[in-house]
Amino acid sequence: MSQKIINTDDLAFLLYELLDIERFTQFPRYEDHSRDTFDAAIELALKVASETFAPHNHACDEDEPRFENGKVVIRPEVAEALKVLRDTGLMAASQDYERGGMQLPAAVSQTCIGLIKGANVSTQAYAGLTIAACNLIMAHGTDEQKQRYAEPMMAGRFFGTMCLTEPHAGSSLGDIKSRAVPQDDGTYRISGNKIFISAGDHELSDNIIHLVLAKLPDAPPGAKGISLFIVPKFLVNDDGSLGERNDVTLAGLIHKMGYRGTTSTMLNFGEKGGAVGYLVGEPHNGLAGMFHMMNEARLGVGLGSVMLGYTGYLHALEYARERSQGRPLKERDPATPMIPIIEHADVRRMLMAQKAFVEGGLALCLYTATLIDEKKHADDPAVREEAAGLNDLLTPIVKSWPSQFCLEANSLAIQVHGGYGYTREYPVEQFYRDNRLNPIHEGTHGIQGQDLLGRKVAMQGGKHYQVLLGRIRSTLDACAAIAELEDGAQRLTADLETLEEITEVLQALRKTDPERALANAYLYMECFGHVLVGWLWLRQAQVALEALQNGGERPESFYRGKLHACDYFLRYELPKPMALASVLRDADRTTLDMPAECF
Amino acid sequence: MSQKIINTDDLAFLLYELLDIERFTQFPRYEDHSRDTFDAAIELALKVASETFAPHNHACDEDEPRFENGKVVIRPEVAEALKVLRDTGLMAASQDYERGGMQLPAAVSQTCIGLIKGANVSTQAYAGLTIAACNLIMAHGTDEQKQRYAEPMMAGRFFGTMCLTEPHAGSSLGDIKSRAVPQDDGTYRISGNKIFISAGDHELSDNIIHLVLAKLPDAPPGAKGISLFIVPKFLVNDDGSLGERNDVTLAGLIHKMGYRGTTSTMLNFGEKGGAVGYLVGEPHNGLAGMFHMMNEARLGVGLGSVMLGYTGYLHALEYARERSQGRPLKERDPATPMIPIIEHADVRRMLMAQKAFVEGGLALCLYTATLIDEKKHADDPAVREEAAGLNDLLTPIVKSWPSQFCLEANSLAIQVHGGYGYTREYPVEQFYRDNRLNPIHEGTHGIQGQDLLGRKVAMQGGKHYQVLLGRIRSTLDACAAIAELEDGAQRLTADLETLEEITEVLQALRKTDPERALANAYLYMECFGHVLVGWLWLRQAQVALEALQNGGERPESFYRGKLHACDYFLRYELPKPMALASVLRDADRTTLDMPAECF
Repeated sequence: MSQKIINTDDLAFLLYELLDIERFTQFPRYEDHSRDTFDAAIELALKVASETFAPHNHACDEDEPRFENGKVVIRPEVAEALKVLRDTGLMAASQDYERGGMQLPAAVSQTCIGLIKGANVSTQAYAGLTIAACNLIMAHGTDEQKQRYAEPMMAGRFFGTMCLTEPHAGSSLGDIKSRAVPQDDGTYRISGNKIFISAGDHELSDNIIHLVLAKLPDAPPGAKGISLFIVPKFLVNDDGSLGERNDVTLAGLIHKMGYRGTTSTMLNFGEKGGAVGYLVGEPHNGLAGMFHMMNEARLGVGLGSVMLGYTGYLHALEYARERSQGRPLKERDPATPMIPIIEHADVRRMLMAQKAFVEGGLALCLYTATLIDEKKHADDPAVREEAAGLNDLLTPIVKSWPSQFCLEANSLAIQVHGGYGYTREYPVEQFYRDNRLNPIHEGTHGIQGQDLLGRKVAMQGGKHYQVLLGRIRSTLDACAAIAELEDGAQRLTADLETLEEITEVLQALRKTDPERALANAYLYMECFGHVLVGWLWLRQAQVALEALQNGGERPESFYRGKLHACDYFLRYELPKPMALASVLRDADRTTLDMPAECF
Repeated sequence: MSQKIINTDDLAFLLYELLDIERFTQFPRYEDHSRDTFDAAIELALKVASETFAPHNHACDEDEPRFENGKVVIRPEVAEALKVLRDTGLMAASQDYERGGMQLPAAVSQTCIGLIKGANVSTQAYAGLTIAACNLIMAHGTDEQKQRYAEPMMAGRFFGTMCLTEPHAGSSLGDIKSRAVPQDDGTYRISGNKIFISAGDHELSDNIIHLVLAKLPDAPPGAKGISLFIVPKFLVNDDGSLGERNDVTLAGLIHKMGYRGTTSTMLNFGEKGGAVGYLVGEPHNGLAGMFHMMNEARLGVGLGSVMLGYTGYLHALEYARERSQGRPLKERDPATPMIPIIEHADVRRMLMAQKAFVEGGLALCLYTATLIDEKKHADDPAVREEAAGLNDLLTPIVKSWPSQFCLEANSLAIQVHGGYGYTREYPVEQFYRDNRLNPIHEGTHGIQGQDLLGRKVAMQGGKHYQVLLGRIRSTLDACAAIAELEDGAQRLTADLETLEEITEVLQALRKTDPERALANAYLYMECFGHVLVGWLWLRQAQVALEALQNGGERPESFYRGKLHACDYFLRYELPKPMALASVLRDADRTTLDMPAECF
């Protein structure tokens, strides 16, 4: 734990004891793998994270990318770290062997990338965006596009971006104005202005492959008229060599509160007549393509939040063990030595909250990653279908829950440090600033709440939702019969029943008065998320208790910590969002009824 | 509202309709004053805040003070703004006429300083610390000290600091190591290292008066052995002219997440043999002196939090009115125009939360300020005593509640802005970073919770607590009989009863098992704070309803907004901390029982 990125006991517990990812070696795709190869990849990622990514995390925050002579100047450690990452092959961890990948399960590849995120989320972003863009081309591109653009991305020679947002259109993507005009040669000329394009320009890679949303001249209005294009910074010749500079101009850099090492740009396409673009997938169907990969992108945001929260927690824990301050309440003699602050109940409360949030959040992210593996590669079509449905259902929560509660963990990490935590001489304030982006990008909390309550819960007549309820109930039934877990099971059972009742009310109301039904969708998502994470905590407690009784690979104190943290989450955290059950049950109109002029 | 520091309707409502501060003109001390003179001071402060302090707020964040050639270099706008403030006389707003002050009630002087805080909390801090240090000398110094040090501070020629914290002793002040050795001439030689000294060195004023905690050679151990000293940067001659440089050395600057315009320093006293210091008050009684003024200092922190939240709210409100994005849920035609985001229920929820927090927080701070006026200057000794007791009781909440919930308001202001809110091109991210200091300095949440539950509630057999309950119950009785307020009164009544029950349980337990009774003191404070602010919201609703029925000075929409915001607070916010009532009632041991090795 010395590198303070992850508790390796916890990671192994989640992957092997809770989620049993060794079972994936029975999937034909992963048959060459074993726990050893999984661990080797994870150890490699942790080594790269600790030795190459973490050391310049602070420097890139203090010395952010600059716009000089039309170019983006970035500290040299970034290029060096990305070269190391590329050389490990980890950028293609989940890709096929035949394309040079490691063909690792998502649970392992996400773990690897998560460790890098925890060490330096800003430098990681260049690689993360590249992997995401590459995956999109792999899913929707032609063979020629895969070969020409995606393969150099897997190899880390080309980097990628996602160009969605425009100055007037963020959440409302259907309103983008960028245009794509078809040419006789089958290419398109793209023009328009994009904003908040992370990694939009730099000198870190030979080329940058922009994935750009734009509209064709005959596009229907709204989201159903969006098409997706590959727009490379440098055109790529048939032999893979670089051709001329495309008509993509860096209009300026955006300066952020955190995540400062990742350059955020404004890009102008077609200032000189039109950037050359290549259609990906069907015309007007670009958003569907983009959303196809959103499940993974949103998992990526959630995982990044968790890992920022996790490293903050480990820093706070070390500080709380080493920093002495004050005395026990019953000690009246000021001449006695001060005690480590971890001995104070309020500090312990803040550490338990962090532990509950970050370990619970990591369980959520890795559980979701196993669904990706199952939906893609399980033998049984029923397993695949169920996993795909659950993955769809959980996506808005996996994106939002960690970005809310692991951000809160980062705030608590500052609080544990006291005045020192507020200074830039300690790293926890940077984690907090970095993490504050996560509730915003890839869809705000508000958007995710609407997605969950307005779409996902009702999909296929509520089928995926029912599958999840079934899994939770099965844990509750098992735990109700175990003395040590009975209390926790009772608490969660009550809240699960409340959630079911609320869901029923709101789903019925959605048909007649969707505005009212969805007015508090965000609060609904908070309840749902806490019940879900509460379940994953109860599952962890169940597994930990078995290990305590039958002997486990890890120290007894580790397993006992899981039982305590489960207790903490169910007693201290679960009740908070559930306190608004009546607001949801009544489909409270307070926010709808407030006239805009009354603010 | 164009300057986005305050809603002037709200301010006037709170001061004159809710708190009726015109009644203070009947106090002999304020008999020369009238609503006109109050308003004139407030308007002056708002003008200075808007025109002189706000414009360089962002610049000082981006270009923080630097340590160059042993001196602190600060942007010139800071000195200019402080000169303007000094010239207005507002630095002595609450001081006696005979010392050159304006002799304004605390409710007015705090309002004035609050407006400056909302415009630029970092530049204000130089003045705020000076006022606080000056007040301490006025309360505990000799006449000669008042004349030699405090009067030039009121005039803004000298600035002040509070030197409490040392690298190893923050919350645990009894463990400071700084030493003071008495000299034959009645002065002392001070030596030691202090850290986190805001405004500890600069060239903004002719002199800096450090108020330093140190221990005499014969000091008893712990907090009962702390003495308080005046240690000027330059010695002051009998005629008020400056003498030689004292032995106070700037050891370095601390770089912070926010509040960057206020230089935070490490100071070494006595590197060259001992800094000349002058004892303030009795030996070994320095902490009592310091705490005497803590009520006002902690109100200052709370007020600063409120004003940062308030300006963030007004920025978010303007953005939400001007920014168009998306369409109503029922609108299926993407060719229709987009709507302002204030029309979306989730954005309205975030604005209502901000309104409830910042207007509720301002009501709390100004209510507390009226207690300061009453305790000092009311004719009736019973009124003075009751106000003093209430002020003591409320201090930990006034410090903590705003610094928690108005920080949350700042986070919501970012969220309303979406991606733009995360950039430094918009001001809301700075407000959030600036405000993150407030839960830490002047005593963390943990310290305040212990003060409330472990001391204040029980003081004088719970007398002050009972006075507060009486005031709340009287509002509840009145509102229960008003149709429009009955529902709110019922909600608050239930939670007040819960709070009373919890208080009884924990106060009884405190006698036998203080560690367990106080383990969740922070959560107790959350409940107490929400009941208190809930009461102030119900009071506001009561006053607004009367104005709607009988005609008020402000627009009808303003008063209706108060009713809506009260509803929001009682329905959406009050239940959250109360959800942990059972944790408190059971004196839950979860955090106590977690062994340190299980993390």
